[in-house]
Amino acid sequence: MTLERSRMRWNGWGWRDHPDPLAGRAAVWPWIAEALGVAALPDTPARPLEDIVLPPSRLDDKTLAALRAILGDERVRVDKRERAFHARGRSYHDLLHLRAGRLEAAPDAVLYPSSEDEVIATLALAAGEGIAVIPFGGGTSVVGGVTAEPGPGQGAVITLDTTAMNKLLGIDRQAMTARFEAGIDGPALEGALASAGLTLGHYPQSFEFSTLGGWIAARGAGQQSYRYGKAEKWLAGLRLATAAGVLTTHDFPASAAGPDLNQLVLGSEGIFGVITEATVKLHTAPAVKDYRGYLLKDFAAGLEAVRALCQADLPIAMARLSDADETHYFRAFAEIGHAGGAGRRLKAGLARAVLRLRRFSGHPCLLLIGAEGDAATTAYAGRHAARLVRAHGGLALGRSPGARWHEGRFAGPYSRDPMLDRGLGVDTLETATRWSNIAPLYAGVREALLQAMRETAASPGARGIVLGHVSHAYRDGASLYFTFLFPRDREDAIGQWRHIKAAASSAIIAHGGTISHHHGVGTDHAAWLAAEKGEVGLAALRAVKAGIDPQAILNPGKLLAAPPE
Amino acid sequence: MTLERSRMRWNGWGWRDHPDPLAGRAAVWPWIAEALGVAALPDTPARPLEDIVLPPSRLDDKTLAALRAILGDERVRVDKRERAFHARGRSYHDLLHLRAGRLEAAPDAVLYPSSEDEVIATLALAAGEGIAVIPFGGGTSVVGGVTAEPGPGQGAVITLDTTAMNKLLGIDRQAMTARFEAGIDGPALEGALASAGLTLGHYPQSFEFSTLGGWIAARGAGQQSYRYGKAEKWLAGLRLATAAGVLTTHDFPASAAGPDLNQLVLGSEGIFGVITEATVKLHTAPAVKDYRGYLLKDFAAGLEAVRALCQADLPIAMARLSDADETHYFRAFAEIGHAGGAGRRLKAGLARAVLRLRRFSGHPCLLLIGAEGDAATTAYAGRHAARLVRAHGGLALGRSPGARWHEGRFAGPYSRDPMLDRGLGVDTLETATRWSNIAPLYAGVREALLQAMRETAASPGARGIVLGHVSHAYRDGASLYFTFLFPRDREDAIGQWRHIKAAASSAIIAHGGTISHHHGVGTDHAAWLAAEKGEVGLAALRAVKAGIDPQAILNPGKLLAAPPE
Repeated sequence: MTLERSRMRWNGWGWRDHPDPLAGRAAVWPWIAEALGVAALPDTPARPLEDIVLPPSRLDDKTLAALRAILGDERVRVDKRERAFHARGRSYHDLLHLRAGRLEAAPDAVLYPSSEDEVIATLALAAGEGIAVIPFGGGTSVVGGVTAEPGPGQGAVITLDTTAMNKLLGIDRQAMTARFEAGIDGPALEGALASAGLTLGHYPQSFEFSTLGGWIAARGAGQQSYRYGKAEKWLAGLRLATAAGVLTTHDFPASAAGPDLNQLVLGSEGIFGVITEATVKLHTAPAVKDYRGYLLKDFAAGLEAVRALCQADLPIAMARLSDADETHYFRAFAEIGHAGGAGRRLKAGLARAVLRLRRFSGHPCLLLIGAEGDAATTAYAGRHAARLVRAHGGLALGRSPGARWHEGRFAGPYSRDPMLDRGLGVDTLETATRWSNIAPLYAGVREALLQAMRETAASPGARGIVLGHVSHAYRDGASLYFTFLFPRDREDAIGQWRHIKAAASSAIIAHGGTISHHHGVGTDHAAWLAAEKGEVGLAALRAVKAGIDPQAILNPGKLLAAPPE
Repeated sequence: MTLERSRMRWNGWGWRDHPDPLAGRAAVWPWIAEALGVAALPDTPARPLEDIVLPPSRLDDKTLAALRAILGDERVRVDKRERAFHARGRSYHDLLHLRAGRLEAAPDAVLYPSSEDEVIATLALAAGEGIAVIPFGGGTSVVGGVTAEPGPGQGAVITLDTTAMNKLLGIDRQAMTARFEAGIDGPALEGALASAGLTLGHYPQSFEFSTLGGWIAARGAGQQSYRYGKAEKWLAGLRLATAAGVLTTHDFPASAAGPDLNQLVLGSEGIFGVITEATVKLHTAPAVKDYRGYLLKDFAAGLEAVRALCQADLPIAMARLSDADETHYFRAFAEIGHAGGAGRRLKAGLARAVLRLRRFSGHPCLLLIGAEGDAATTAYAGRHAARLVRAHGGLALGRSPGARWHEGRFAGPYSRDPMLDRGLGVDTLETATRWSNIAPLYAGVREALLQAMRETAASPGARGIVLGHVSHAYRDGASLYFTFLFPRDREDAIGQWRHIKAAASSAIIAHGGTISHHHGVGTDHAAWLAAEKGEVGLAALRAVKAGIDPQAILNPGKLLAAPPE
């Protein structure tokens, strides 16, 4: 298995032995404390697993024996670490529970099926016994998508970890597609394609730890989705193991034979079944990756530039526009507390002087534009993009900001764990809307976050900061991604988070955004789904659920249900 | 109303006053007779409407009064011509019924609602009374999508013609989208956009007579869908009036908030509800339309060229590849029976001599490549496409074949009526598959059609011909479109058609194609849908149907049902 669970953190991000990116940068902490209006940051370590007692497994011996008969002894795990690892996803909210040792949601067993037949047999057993089944890929959900809680009347929960189903099943070079078992993770998938000179090109921030099936179930987006597409674009066909049998969709290039059932599985978050295989659309591995930075005078100018890029149909791979605060804080954060920091600061000071001369205001915004492909296409894209950005007043910064971003593009979440160790709260959320509504949505969500962080300030004078960026852009609109950082209320960290999350979610709906562009719904956004899908839309989805999962065993509480109190 | 029904043929294609394209070309008929192995073509005129007696309307006075109270007297039509016009779509099979005066399927009333509220009120009334409701846009379905037949236990049928709901509701220039009432027809829609310098770019062969709502309901494709997208690509959001209320989808550029409900309505063919409004994605109206012809040595070489074009991501608008028979017959058909035909034939003879010199075999295939957009992009596309096609052995024919195709691109169906007047049978069907399966699917369907036409030959020695082309191409596959012509069995024309249609449909499924790429399912393909969607897939769609149309009043017998005997 490539994603060896024993090598991964059960209550944090990624590999256990990954270095702390903030280690040795002591100056970071007082700088953050000052930004957040608090005197100092406390030590708030997580509880070690040894000190935590899990509730006993609710599965009786007969059921465990039946599961072992299906999967083999080695693939039915009831040990503490496996149960703790699979209790929840990896959102800030999840980590609050995990780090505090609140593991009521630990599954009663963790299964690692190695075939679709084993999945089907497990679902049949679970349906018969009324046991909840949590489909679990990488487990990197940040919306409560894999919390191992039973539905009403269900006495036990089993988590079905798909990562043992991780084989490449075939490449179709003529159609430029490949078929995989759906539990394969990002590096394994791209590794298998790279040796054939091909790529899927789906690189979400969770790339190293998330799976093909998870990307589909959550309608995920890679950072270069402008070129390679969100999951709903690159999915060609799949197999979904349900309690009613296997749903198979075909890899037709297009069809008018009724509604597209791929699109019913995309975003279904495990409530209809377990994705066991998928065929995906490929590209030739890019010969060139060209990422460049530009500075725009403010966010509004940056938005106009990105819109122009998209509507000119340029063959770029990514356009990522930071707002003024993100531009400022990311730059400052990169400079603070490093050995050689004085030299970096001098260089930064000179750069600022140049900007002043060029009449940039105090709110410059960083725009990163990436092009990937053959040399001719990337050159064409780079040249035309540069011209368009300059026409919007952009200042070319060359390739180094692009290279820095590309190098660290999966590293962000590793900074969260040390921040949680120092009394901080940090979370992200995202939305999308049409271009004509981007500015009001941005302002509305940002203000809601700032206000909610003020309202839940853990101490007088404490405040939060909000960093925003356009993460994915389209001809007709774009997504907005927000990172927010605040001093944690150590008395009621969950209540504080719920208040902030609710304020932001309600602001998204009130300002005409989708409750999620690529994170999904899970438990955390379920209460806002009705406002987006409407009663008839929810009725349609509930009808499908009742039709193919009549015992409601699959991923209870996610997507369609109200969030737990 | 732009699509004034009184100006249109009730039992044929298009405008009543459109000239017969075969008039004055007497030499066409003996040439066709020879190609089909029959001595001569008989006169087989359609029955005039005056001679036909319709079954009396099954609606009682009370129900009619209630409908008139909702819609107004003028918008509730029970006259013979309206009922006859709306009895069926415009497939060959439909025309066999209409031309013979078999109008059992005439609706009991034809309604022209002018607002969504009227639609909702009508659906409520129909649900209460158990009356079937047939949503009807342009009525150009060629798969039995609008046949006005009741479902089990339903005593009457009303057809809901949407073409009075035809307003532009707004253009969003920033998002490059426009919102329309869904009954608007192609010319009205493009006319409204053209004055703003914009286009949707959706030009199916039925463009002049089909509607926005119909394009969505059938997952239609325009001829330039490579650039502008099939309906599932250009639809941003919609309103669907159902018996359970209005389903509203938002025009987000992308979302991960559960399955995409747009995709559940796309291809739903009126069985879930009536599409009342839609927001669509626009492009700047192209400054240049550049269509050119190439000759490839055979179909296989042409397929490779089209695949290379698509996988090179060139910004073309269309690639249309005729097989050898279509290339031959379309060319010959264009030459036969014209004044000046001798001159044309001389020119054609010289062209053939040139081809022989260039070592083209006896099976050359015509490839049309269109580019649309600004001057720079179309020049880039045209140049690179020409290079790629030449690399596949293609011979450039210049712009005149492209111009001829573009000029006649909506005219084809007008030739069908005079052919039906001369004892011919003529129908089309289409499918799609991945590139690696295109050749076997093509061969399998073509052979099935030829064999079925032999088996149903109306006289000894009679035969059919099959013309094929790639109509829509993608990175991962393409659609195949077949036109087939045969001497009609005047004793059992319907039985003959059923036999041929069943053979072709079964061959499509057996050879891994979709039962439809853009025509839809209707009644004619419903029997083959289970093989494609599977039991679980059909269960999911049936669950949605039962959930939001519990009385099953909407378009009974289409999509999910078995075809009528």
